[in-house]
This record gives sequence, structure tokens and C-alpha cells, in this order.
Amino acid sequence: MTLLEEVKRGAKTEELSKVAKKEKIPEDTFYRRIASGKIVVMRHRGDYVAIGKGLRTKVNCSIGSSPDLVDIDMEVKKAITGVESGADSLMELSTGGDLDEIRRRVLDAVDVPVGSVPLYQAAINSIRKNGSILHMTEDDIFNSVKRHAKDGIRFMAIHCGINKLTYDRVMNQGRYGGIVSRGGAFLLSWIDFNETENPLYANFDYLLEILKEHEVVLSLGNGMRAGCIHDSLDRAQTMELIVNCELADRANEAGVQAIVEGPGHIPINEIEAFVKLQKRLSGEKPFYVLGPITTDVAPGYDHITSAIGSAIGSSVGVDFICYVTPAEHLALPYPEDVKEGVMASRIAAHIGDMIKYDRRDQDLGMAKARREVNWKEQFKFCLDPKRAEEIRGSRPSEFDDTCAMCGEYCALKLLKTKVKLLG
Amino acid sequence: MTLLEEVKRGAKTEELSKVAKKEKIPEDTFYRRIASGKIVVMRHRGDYVAIGKGLRTKVNCSIGSSPDLVDIDMEVKKAITGVESGADSLMELSTGGDLDEIRRRVLDAVDVPVGSVPLYQAAINSIRKNGSILHMTEDDIFNSVKRHAKDGIRFMAIHCGINKLTYDRVMNQGRYGGIVSRGGAFLLSWIDFNETENPLYANFDYLLEILKEHEVVLSLGNGMRAGCIHDSLDRAQTMELIVNCELADRANEAGVQAIVEGPGHIPINEIEAFVKLQKRLSGEKPFYVLGPITTDVAPGYDHITSAIGSAIGSSVGVDFICYVTPAEHLALPYPEDVKEGVMASRIAAHIGDMIKYDRRDQDLGMAKARREVNWKEQFKFCLDPKRAEEIRGSRPSEFDDTCAMCGEYCALKLLKTKVKLLG
Repeated sequence: MTLLEEVKRGAKTEELSKVAKKEKIPEDTFYRRIASGKIVVMRHRGDYVAIGKGLRTKVNCSIGSSPDLVDIDMEVKKAITGVESGADSLMELSTGGDLDEIRRRVLDAVDVPVGSVPLYQAAINSIRKNGSILHMTEDDIFNSVKRHAKDGIRFMAIHCGINKLTYDRVMNQGRYGGIVSRGGAFLLSWIDFNETENPLYANFDYLLEILKEHEVVLSLGNGMRAGCIHDSLDRAQTMELIVNCELADRANEAGVQAIVEGPGHIPINEIEAFVKLQKRLSGEKPFYVLGPITTDVAPGYDHITSAIGSAIGSSVGVDFICYVTPAEHLALPYPEDVKEGVMASRIAAHIGDMIKYDRRDQDLGMAKARREVNWKEQFKFCLDPKRAEEIRGSRPSEFDDTCAMCGEYCALKLLKTKVKLLG
Repeated sequence: MTLLEEVKRGAKTEELSKVAKKEKIPEDTFYRRIASGKIVVMRHRGDYVAIGKGLRTKVNCSIGSSPDLVDIDMEVKKAITGVESGADSLMELSTGGDLDEIRRRVLDAVDVPVGSVPLYQAAINSIRKNGSILHMTEDDIFNSVKRHAKDGIRFMAIHCGINKLTYDRVMNQGRYGGIVSRGGAFLLSWIDFNETENPLYANFDYLLEILKEHEVVLSLGNGMRAGCIHDSLDRAQTMELIVNCELADRANEAGVQAIVEGPGHIPINEIEAFVKLQKRLSGEKPFYVLGPITTDVAPGYDHITSAIGSAIGSSVGVDFICYVTPAEHLALPYPEDVKEGVMASRIAAHIGDMIKYDRRDQDLGMAKARREVNWKEQFKFCLDPKRAEEIRGSRPSEFDDTCAMCGEYCALKLLKTKVKLLG
């Protein structure tokens, strides 16, 4: 039996109950939501990571080589940097070099759950063998899923929702920014050439069997995600979302936990509508969103354009944020990009949780430490205490209790005893 | 006659009409909004910068020494960096060293309008002379205003709204984060000690005379701004906002252009309410907002926490964003912090304009350049082309038309000819 099946039958475990406690939600609610698919749980070597309704918004950090840049040590370093920066999970998305080797090295290096897109390996093997992905076979695809599952991959982004229905919608409609999902592009061109339904959709039950056997969470991939603001919330994506939500139900019925993925590029006034649509269509399944990036014109700063989108998204219901780094749209990220990306997403996740769950204790702690001009205490409440200390330390103040910004004219010091202090 | 008085009487000038054209709003609307106080215009040596309803959201970059860090050359460098990064205006807020010298050096160095807080100089002179700001005289304050105006300062943040009404509100109510505005703290402690009304409120008409004579825009300062999330939208601030909006009307009646300032720290679900309140109370006068910073717990990343707030703010009506740098709450910014701060604010301003005015042409241009995998064209549409080129250039791709992120597996390349392209 899978964990989902066990929980559906009323099983409780000490380790899962511990998560409910840590997340500060009632144990009964927690198990009920796992059973109804509103919460997923997964783990690698560390504690369970739980994602979904009522829980702290989680952050995923994606790493992986590209055909142009294969450096396994750097990928391992990126994985470790991501986790040290506070990512709750990793995705290992390599497309260059020895894919098995990189995946295993990364799995060895971290304790958090690691996800992947097995289709990449199937497609790349086909290109390496046949010179094209068009001759990739069904077996190539499912064998790749099995191989990743056996290695210990805990969640997989699988583009099951790219089927004839979504294919027709995108072909009828057209696009401003084209197709930007690699998985989506691989499958669309494969469907187009082979005039066959996507095997991951046609043989979805077989896919579920494999995932079930290895206790893998299915993350229904967003192959139609908008790659520009002008394609946001279009018919192709909405069709794929409907299909993915149907499949998420089927996964749950088969005992497989499921997450639904979202885009990509969305203008800030459409984010709430998108999140509400996903929540309604999926029956409140966990929503895993890449960004969203909220303008197309700031390459080099897409950790910021996506932090803006993620903060709004998580405030209205996004449960799981896939980070975006400053290198997005330009190059493969380096470790320093990974750190910036994770931090920007963690800030956004926290801002969302302040709104969604009224979790403002940390902010209150900081406010009190600040009004006391107590620096040691302030650093305790920082999302990145090290960076804060470094900046303050780099420009010392004449006085211990002020900083180089205002020095002796510190407003807080000036009126410290005058205004009644709350909290 | 002031510019406002002339426009009220129907005057038009070639240079102002040029601004309307550049901002793509009808000339008549532009002049009508200046006359009704919904748009302010100001300039130093360059073109007029216009701020308000229907116009591109503008970004201000604040610089200035502190008692702990006086380096005039660095302040000049920060001013130039801010302008080169795309700031529409500067504020020179020095509180350390020879304040006159720094102000004049900065005014010499840039063409954009420069603002200031003359109260700082009055307070600091009093501290230097008397050991305390409590003995600062009315003359000290007004002489400082005059001195800045004569030097060519084009807008001044003046904390006129700190009066007995706001004093009583903050004392009755108390605060979680205390008072964090330096101007606010100077005046509150002065009022408290001297048991006298704030001269900038009591003698507001005299202040207007000085501003009028030198064609200075009055920016009604936010001395009660929240310094933490838990003080957002509290009674003290709302009282000050009411007073400031009354004073903005009085300024307009006297022929002085006015801007109303906003905070500070606001959780993202209160930003829209705050902006609508300001717009309603002020009769849609330009709203100039510091950030807002949207969580207290990310010092070191406050350019991001405030970009999140600024994007939401500008999307619902904020006209003028005061940038925040990564050094905020920790230290005086360095030139590199200035650049990061201006860029984050420009991104937020653009995202706001995408929503507020449907200005998405630049995003559409980028989408088209991206789908063609045309890099030269992409860089044209970047807010910071140089940084984008640097990142791409630092990790070259095997092919000219891809980047090191996906290399030959570029989704856009793969499906280039398959999906109908729009736009």
C-alpha cells in the first residue's frame, strides 16, 4: 500500500504527526487533507516535506547541467547551496553529460526530496542514439521513469496533459511567445511527427503503476506554460490545466499523490484568477508554480520579477514555488545565482504566508528587536542573518547600537522612551 | 507667477507639451491635470519630469552621507550611478560632513531634479551648535528651506503633517515599531519638549511663500510612516495622511505644486486600500511611496521586499516610487547598492504600468525577439541590456542562437515553425 492509501484508511505515523505539529495545524486536519489530496508529503533522507493547504509555502530549487555546460561538481555544489539557502526540495534537471551519474551524485549530496523530469533523459537518449527525439519510443519514456524512481527520485514533473486536446487548442489558437517548456516542446513535436497520442496520457494507468510502486509524487507538468506575458491564461494552458486536474484525481484514486503545476509568465493582475481556477478545477490540490515571472523585460533580474509574482501567488493559495534565478532566460545558473533565486523565493513564500495564514510572528519579533536597536536580536529574525551581518559589518557605525545609515540621528533611538510600545 | 498658476490660467509651453507627447497622453488632459494638482512637473537642467495620473511611474533614488560615513566623491558617484541606472529623480539626504558642499556637488553632477529634506540640516546644525535638536528655532528651519531652494533643490520632503493632531494619535495609540522617520522623530521630540505646534504646520503659509518664490514642489513628508508590518495603516499615519492631504490642497491654492508621501512597511494585502485612501483623500494628487517594504524579516534583500510592494502599489495608482537598496536597515548604501535599488524599482514601476495603463509593448517586443531566438533584438527590450549581455556572455553556448540554459534542446528552436505566431 502507498502512503496515500494507508492514510486514506486512517493510518497515522509518528513522523507524519511530527510534521503536522511543526506546521502548526491540527493533526486530524493534516491527515484528512493528505487523504483528500490537498496535501502531499514526501521525503528523501530527511524529514517529510509536506506541501499544500494550511502549510508553510515551500520553495523548490532546480539545478542540472545543460549540453553546453557539464560540470558535475558544480551541480553538486548548486544542490548543496540550494539546500543551505533554505530550499525545501530540489529538482535535478540535467540535460548534458552522464545523466545517471549526475542524478546519483546529487541524490547522495542532499537530504531533501529530489524531483526530476524523466522525459528529458528519454528524449536525450533518443537524440544521442537516433539523432532526433522524434523516434523516441514509449519504452524509452517509461524506462526513464522507472530508472529515476529506482534511484530515489521522490517527485516527477510529467507532461501528461500534453494530449490531442491541448495540441488542438495551441494549434488553433497560436502563440505570442511560442512553446517554452522543454518537456512540452519534446512531446508536441513527437505527437506531431508520429501522429499518435502522448503515451504518458494514453497509458496513464501504467505510469501510475510505476509511480505507485516507488512511492513517487506525480507533479503534473506545465508543458503549455506561457513563456511571455501576452500568452498568460490562454486557451492552450487552460485546456492543459483541465486535463491535468482530471489526471490528478485519477492519480489520487490509484493511491498516487499528485501536484498540479502552473506557469511561467503572468501579469500581476491575472495571478489571483489563475490560482483560484487551479484550486477550483483541482479540488484544492497543491499548486506548484514556476515564479510566475511578471514582466518579460528584465532578464538578469528574473529572481525579482518572479519574487513579485510568487509573493502575490502564495498570498492567494500557491503552495509550492519553483524558484527562478538571475540567470533565467540567459544562461545556466551558477551557485551564486542559485542562492539569489532561493532567497528571493523564500522571501516571497514568507510574504504569502503572512497574508494566507496570518503568520507574522517573525515580523513582530523583528519589529521589537528593531525598536530596541538590538542588533543581535534582529539577526535572529532575519531570513538570511549572515548577509545582514555582513552588510552592517562592512560599514561600521560609531556607536554599537546604531548603523551607518543614520548614525547618531537614529530615529528609533531618539524617541525610544517617548512612544508607548505595543506587542 | 508659478508654473502652476500659469497653467491654471491656460498657459502652454513647448517644453511641457513635449512631455505630454513623450508620455503619450493627450496634451489637454496633461495640462488639465497639472492645473488640478493631479500631475506635478519639475526640472533641474534636463527635461521636465512629470509625475502623476496617466504618466509612466517614476523612480527616485536617494543618496547622501551619514555621520558615520562622509565621502563626498562616493555620494557624487552614487548620484551618477542612480541616474545612469535610470532613476528619474534624486534625493540628496546627507546628514554628515559639510551639508552645503555635498548638496552643491550633487546638483552639479546630475541633470535630473534633486530633492531634499531641509529639516535635516536645521536639526543637525542645532545639534552641532547646541548639542541637541530640541533648541532648534523656527528660523533655523525656514532658513534651511530657503538655502536649499536657492541652491536649486526642486522638491522638498517636509513633515508638515506632524502636528498636535498626529502627535496625540501616536501617543494615544502607541506603536509596535516606534517612529522610524528621521524627520518625524526630530519634530515629535521637538514638539514634545517645546510644547509648541510644529512651525512647518503653524506657519505653513510662510513655507508656501518660500517654495513659491523658488518654484519648489512640496512633497508632504511621511513622518508617521510605519517602520514595521504591524504598524501599517494605523491611526497615527492615517491622521497624518488626512492633514497632508488638506495641506496639499492649500499648497495648490497658493500656486505651489504638491505630492503626498506614503510609507514604508505595508503587508501586501493592505497596499491597495492604502493607495485608494490616499487617492480619495487627496483628490488624486501624486502619491510618492517609499517601497513599500512588504516584510520586516529580509534585511539584505529589501530592494526585493520593496519591489514586491512597489509593483503592487504602482499597479493600483502609486505614481512615484522611492527606491530601497539592499543596504536598507543595515548600513549606508554603496554605489552598487544604488544600482540594485534603482533597477528593482524600475522593474516594479514597469510592472505597475503594464497593469495601470496596459503598457505591454516592450513585453510584446521581447516575446517576439525570444520566439525568434534573436538575441540582439532581445537585448534591445531589456531594462538592463548590459547585465543581460554579461550573464549570457559569461556562459557561452555552442550555438549562436541558443543559450547555455538549454543549449541544443531549446524549446523555442524545436517548435519554431510549428505553432502559429501571433502579434
